[in-house]
Amino acid sequence: MDLLDELNAHYDAMPPVAAMQVRAVHYDGQRLRLHAPLAANVNDKACAFGGSLVSLMTLAGWGLLTLRLREAGIQAEVYVADSQVRYLAPVYTDLEAEAWLAPEVDWDAVLAAWAARGRARAGVLARVAGADGANAAELSGRFAALRPA
Amino acid sequence: MDLLDELNAHYDAMPPVAAMQVRAVHYDGQRLRLHAPLAANVNDKACAFGGSLVSLMTLAGWGLLTLRLREAGIQAEVYVADSQVRYLAPVYTDLEAEAWLAPEVDWDAVLAAWAARGRARAGVLARVAGADGANAAELSGRFAALRPA
Repeated sequence: MDLLDELNAHYDAMPPVAAMQVRAVHYDGQRLRLHAPLAANVNDKACAFGGSLVSLMTLAGWGLLTLRLREAGIQAEVYVADSQVRYLAPVYTDLEAEAWLAPEVDWDAVLAAWAARGRARAGVLARVAGADGANAAELSGRFAALRPA
Repeated sequence: MDLLDELNAHYDAMPPVAAMQVRAVHYDGQRLRLHAPLAANVNDKACAFGGSLVSLMTLAGWGLLTLRLREAGIQAEVYVADSQVRYLAPVYTDLEAEAWLAPEVDWDAVLAAWAARGRARAGVLARVAGADGANAAELSGRFAALRPA
């Protein structure tokens, strides 16, 4: 099973995520992209529900950190610790979110923290693009990686 | 139809919210409380999915502002503009979120802004309590009210 299949199996195992019909569709080692159909995530104004936007960006950040750690041979439990979200424009199309490490993250230091203490934190940025390519929603979040219980 | 029934009809009209099985259960004019069963909102670690926590708090804030405006005779479209969220502890029970106006909000000024311009903003706080009563998740958000299109 490749990394994206494994991640999608994780997503599908969560009932609220399965209901959103989330799919990890692309990962290049730096950015993870998720897709979710508008129909499963629409609000009463025919655009994307804000909770679905933040959920999808959070799942993208969670997935990115999970994949980056897996590539380093680390099987960690990843948790979101906090996030700041801005909703900039309504989304009338299927939802596409992408996530990447925040520019201030020193990945070698993250791996060193894990090796020393079995826990690490990293900042992640994520966005949902609107039809015009500009950001429709933005997330800045911090995620924690812990040893599986 | 009373205010909570009307709000629940709004929630049920949104597929991702219906999937979360969200119910507005109490409103006293100051605080709105929502409930959602853990089973529909669980992650792969047997506790509440972070996206469901932030969605429920966002829906509580959205509902609070919608109800407060309705009580003032105002039928507005309410949108979330931004939010800061902290995830403090895992939630292993059904989810209960409550929302109230941020302490700095001058409600008379909000109504005056609406009367003058047909738009207004207000800050809202929300939380999900853990089994011990302490906050398991906290949200601080700003919502905008606009005239229906």
